[in-house]
Amino acid sequence: MRVAVTGAGGMIGRKLVERIAREGVAGRAVERLVLHDVAAPPGPPGAAALGGDLGADAGRLAEERPDVLFHLAAVVSGEAEADLDKGYRVNLDGLRALVDALRARDCRPRLVFASSGAVFGGPFPPVVPDDFPPRPLTSYGAQKLMGEVLLDDLSRRGLLDAVSLRLPTICVRPGLPNRAASGFFSGIVREPLAGRPAVLPVPREVVHTMASPRAAVGFFLHAAALDTGPMGARRAVTLPGVAVSVAEEIEALRRLAGERAVALIEERPDPAVWAIVRTWAERFEARAARDMGFVAEDSFEAILRAHVEDELGGGVPA
Amino acid sequence: MRVAVTGAGGMIGRKLVERIAREGVAGRAVERLVLHDVAAPPGPPGAAALGGDLGADAGRLAEERPDVLFHLAAVVSGEAEADLDKGYRVNLDGLRALVDALRARDCRPRLVFASSGAVFGGPFPPVVPDDFPPRPLTSYGAQKLMGEVLLDDLSRRGLLDAVSLRLPTICVRPGLPNRAASGFFSGIVREPLAGRPAVLPVPREVVHTMASPRAAVGFFLHAAALDTGPMGARRAVTLPGVAVSVAEEIEALRRLAGERAVALIEERPDPAVWAIVRTWAERFEARAARDMGFVAEDSFEAILRAHVEDELGGGVPA
Repeated sequence: MRVAVTGAGGMIGRKLVERIAREGVAGRAVERLVLHDVAAPPGPPGAAALGGDLGADAGRLAEERPDVLFHLAAVVSGEAEADLDKGYRVNLDGLRALVDALRARDCRPRLVFASSGAVFGGPFPPVVPDDFPPRPLTSYGAQKLMGEVLLDDLSRRGLLDAVSLRLPTICVRPGLPNRAASGFFSGIVREPLAGRPAVLPVPREVVHTMASPRAAVGFFLHAAALDTGPMGARRAVTLPGVAVSVAEEIEALRRLAGERAVALIEERPDPAVWAIVRTWAERFEARAARDMGFVAEDSFEAILRAHVEDELGGGVPA
Repeated sequence: MRVAVTGAGGMIGRKLVERIAREGVAGRAVERLVLHDVAAPPGPPGAAALGGDLGADAGRLAEERPDVLFHLAAVVSGEAEADLDKGYRVNLDGLRALVDALRARDCRPRLVFASSGAVFGGPFPPVVPDDFPPRPLTSYGAQKLMGEVLLDDLSRRGLLDAVSLRLPTICVRPGLPNRAASGFFSGIVREPLAGRPAVLPVPREVVHTMASPRAAVGFFLHAAALDTGPMGARRAVTLPGVAVSVAEEIEALRRLAGERAVALIEERPDPAVWAIVRTWAERFEARAARDMGFVAEDSFEAILRAHVEDELGGGVPA
């Protein structure tokens, strides 16, 4: 099997690549693995790494004739809101360039697209059902929705075979903060666990649906192996996650690492972050995704445990 | 007031331009009227006419700094399905070029976008409510939906002030048939009234929502004058029309022009047309649009009457 990954240098991309190297894709061995990001990303021995602008490199990726293409490259929500042109250029035009390059070579891969729950905008019901109309209230959400619509159309025409994953917020994100407006959901846990201060820019009552990086990698691999026949021309899947409040996150942190860790969280309201976060749904029903076999954690404790196991060597620093 | 019209050489475009020349826009006189189409379209004295590719001409249009921009230029449904690249180039990239050119000049007009009921795809409830999720099943519908999402985003950001009109099928279309898959709804009336044969490519039981060209021009002018404040960031409006079956159309034709006219209709099923038409809704609730003051005909007789008055000099040829 031939596999390509865009955004392969990002947090989820790196973890996905590691797991592909260990387990293959859809139960098959990977003979060719091509990774792309703005700078050539690290990868396992034998993988090809390309670095550059996705629009310019789309042809090189298509020439690899991937059977499965994981398209994770994106400008994240905070940056897409701050830099309108960059958001459309990467999140929409990048995808257009990719699918055009594939079509030009008559290459019709399974394309797993990193979409987002941000395709939805409020006002929301308490639990957002699968058929809730996507009407985004951020540029990031708009760009992801346009991508979904494009991929549905091309899938309907048999020009590729897409699955668009409406990801919940991924938490706990390891590594440095990025410009995703949702970053603090991870930061208020990750930073105190490392003995560093963290900022909470929204009220503690905020409820949000999350899944671990490990679950996210599982979503991508499950989508790569999915029978898309029953989906027809509707390839977007709203994924499951666990809905937790910021207060519940903080309590879980307290149980794991004590009062000293919690004391490192500083509440400092940020209107720019709040303006984005308040447009997001709290809970998703995600019934179709669960029926299709997509699995996420069922508690914030499980998310924390995944973080401790995958990032902290199984233990919490004293 | 400065006004620009793209697709000004098309059927609705020409009628819109005529009425703008007579009545102005939003109760104001028009000092500058700029018309665009692939070939420089005819217009009233004093109007400027540009002909060319919309992508290349977007800058020239934006330099006119329109207060109101009617964006009607489009590749129609049948052609967008037959020629994928042309559909995306005109229907999506053309709009992108236009809004980018406006942004580059900090010009923030009321932009009235000709969208379509084709943004919806089935299965449908008997009456499609305003909040029905748009999930198109044609490339035309996909391109129009992507345009709506883009315009909602830019309107939310205050970069322009859009209204996207989800038009019903316009009937009776005068002039030559175009490549819209819905063309036969007009053809089976227009052609027999002119003593010419017509082809019916779908079953008589097909029900479809229609409005006259006169009503369509009314929609555009109403949208130009609309207070968009209450719409917030959701600028797409599903417009009203009258739901009639093909059989009812034929009966109305019989009452107006007799058996001889009806005998000119030949039933010749066309799988390509049927494949598109069957993806369309039968009836739209269009409650929000009615509340906003958008008005269409309430019977097919009224649509026929508009055709006879506007196209046939008020009488039916013997």
